[in-house]
Amino acid sequence: MRDVSIIGIGQTPVGEHWELSLRHLAYEALAAAMQDAGVERADALYVGNMLSGEISGQSHLGPLIADFAGLRGIEAVKIEGACGSGAAAVRIGYMAVASGLQDIVICVGVEKMTDEVGSRLTSGLAQAADADYESAHGLSFVALNALLMRRYMYEYHVRHEDFAGFAMNSHANAAGNPNAMFRRPITLEAFKTAAMIADPINLLDSSPMGDGAAAVILCPTEAAHRFTGKAVRIAASAMATDSLSIHDRRDPLWLQAAQDSAQRAYRQAGVGPADINLFELHDAFTIMGALSLEAAGFAERGKGWQLAVDGEIRPGGCIPICTMGGLKARGHPVGATGVYQIVEAAQQLRGEAGDCQIPNARRAMTQNIGGSGATIVTHILEA
Amino acid sequence: MRDVSIIGIGQTPVGEHWELSLRHLAYEALAAAMQDAGVERADALYVGNMLSGEISGQSHLGPLIADFAGLRGIEAVKIEGACGSGAAAVRIGYMAVASGLQDIVICVGVEKMTDEVGSRLTSGLAQAADADYESAHGLSFVALNALLMRRYMYEYHVRHEDFAGFAMNSHANAAGNPNAMFRRPITLEAFKTAAMIADPINLLDSSPMGDGAAAVILCPTEAAHRFTGKAVRIAASAMATDSLSIHDRRDPLWLQAAQDSAQRAYRQAGVGPADINLFELHDAFTIMGALSLEAAGFAERGKGWQLAVDGEIRPGGCIPICTMGGLKARGHPVGATGVYQIVEAAQQLRGEAGDCQIPNARRAMTQNIGGSGATIVTHILEA
Repeated sequence: MRDVSIIGIGQTPVGEHWELSLRHLAYEALAAAMQDAGVERADALYVGNMLSGEISGQSHLGPLIADFAGLRGIEAVKIEGACGSGAAAVRIGYMAVASGLQDIVICVGVEKMTDEVGSRLTSGLAQAADADYESAHGLSFVALNALLMRRYMYEYHVRHEDFAGFAMNSHANAAGNPNAMFRRPITLEAFKTAAMIADPINLLDSSPMGDGAAAVILCPTEAAHRFTGKAVRIAASAMATDSLSIHDRRDPLWLQAAQDSAQRAYRQAGVGPADINLFELHDAFTIMGALSLEAAGFAERGKGWQLAVDGEIRPGGCIPICTMGGLKARGHPVGATGVYQIVEAAQQLRGEAGDCQIPNARRAMTQNIGGSGATIVTHILEA
Repeated sequence: MRDVSIIGIGQTPVGEHWELSLRHLAYEALAAAMQDAGVERADALYVGNMLSGEISGQSHLGPLIADFAGLRGIEAVKIEGACGSGAAAVRIGYMAVASGLQDIVICVGVEKMTDEVGSRLTSGLAQAADADYESAHGLSFVALNALLMRRYMYEYHVRHEDFAGFAMNSHANAAGNPNAMFRRPITLEAFKTAAMIADPINLLDSSPMGDGAAAVILCPTEAAHRFTGKAVRIAASAMATDSLSIHDRRDPLWLQAAQDSAQRAYRQAGVGPADINLFELHDAFTIMGALSLEAAGFAERGKGWQLAVDGEIRPGGCIPICTMGGLKARGHPVGATGVYQIVEAAQQLRGEAGDCQIPNARRAMTQNIGGSGATIVTHILEA
């Protein structure tokens, strides 16, 4: 099996891109990544996307984007794992290069959400949950997370404001990221008084929807030096799954798939949580931040929120998370998010994170979540 | 790179499965394949599907099906390349095993279409085409193929009835396949007088929609003997793409991606068209049969229909196609079709095709098409 590295990264700002179609959006990230890598061709393209069928009436994104990018003919296919689609596409690209079947691979995550902001978007997002046993009963995606958060607060005696640190950290970090959607720090008071969405989740517990695309170029590590002096090695790539429906899990407050995929990643990379300098986790809602920290081994069960209260998730803390703003403040273009996380981790490891730079970042972990924890894709990257 | 073999196959009959949900349908094929292979666990699951979001309000099929099949926790993700999703999922499974990352992999194609038979199905299928430049102008999928067929008849001076052999062969072959949807032979007269759908495509030029699921189990060839005495080796796996929209192609009557992926497959397997004993091609419409035969090197440009007229595509002909009924008569559950083709080719190579058996079948080719030729996945299998 060949070792794999990232030789190029690209991204669009996250926001409302009324002037760009889905294919244009993907192209902007992809072209930036190819220019960054100095490559003019590729052997394959793997596209992470969740909602193009529902929102844009367009499936079949592999050839659509390959052709539009001037890469007509290459292997190109879409990978879908709900909000975990982006990192899943990188995982498939990793396999393609590792196998020896492809040498230069593009992985792009793209989502165009703001063309549709009504019930169709809510029902589209609910497709990540179990259609027969969850969505059919009226549970939207935020409602599912609200049930989890309420249960967490009850079981572990946690107040709502104990989650404030997650939102405040993400917003503070996003201020330094030119591609982030919300670049304003928020106060504890703002968090406590934000409009309620689905009790106990309020507006500032929730990540915003947005349009966006991010891309990485992969090649065998042994060939990376031919393209760039700043390759980032993929030390581990792991995917694990859980039941779609939360009620089918033994413990609804434990992200088993997050634990499984993190453990597989630690094994592959030969490291543990203490060796990770920064962690791009999937803070779609603040509760997910707490659950991810616990499942990935950074906190005891029921204690993930404490890291936020203590400021340990901030730059300079023991495990900085969402260093470029996370889903909460960079924005969450669902099928693209997993690739954004990996691009941002690569920025940190290349020392190109600007005002968001974590000093001496040598090893970063990313964790992309699909559904309420049913698909979890973990990567560990090394400078 | 590891050599990969198929150690188990499974399928449901294609038809109207009102009693089975999407997950049940997938499970039936998957469980049959696991039993066939004698395996009780797997490392990963790749699901080929196109329409579950549009028809069933359910995306995120990887963990859904893995969990329902008792495989909770494993890597599981959906692969989408329109009607080419099935073979694309096998292609990804092939990469997973070839890379050494996974040892036992399940690839399942599943589609539940008959829950929705109205405009939503038509618009769902049209998502395979270019939403901005084709579908938005009212071109349904059959209409696109009708334009191709009309142009073919004009350019090459071919009569509509010259395509009859494709439909008649598929129907005759399906008579021997217990999993086929339409098991009655049809006459030339019936073909000529069938109801018009989109001129010149009539009812008997067109494959029927149906519910269905098919699955294969893959493992490294070197380990296959531990599971079965009848493994089928994947001698080649290749995917190529073209522009989604037909008007963007230099020659609308040439399936460039079919040629590219067939040539890549021939090279990988070290064979040519003359070495193929049977060819499971993608006869969604009769015109696709002619175009595939030409692009894959079995006929000169503009002469694919002649093989049908001459009976050379029938069992005993120089290149038997659609030996178990093809899309036309086995039925076309879109995202599952590519896996059906591979399962049927494996049946032939194992000598288990019953009344459909091609004598001395040693090497089979399958070609799965997404859209009007934008995604083409070719596999070559060897006994």
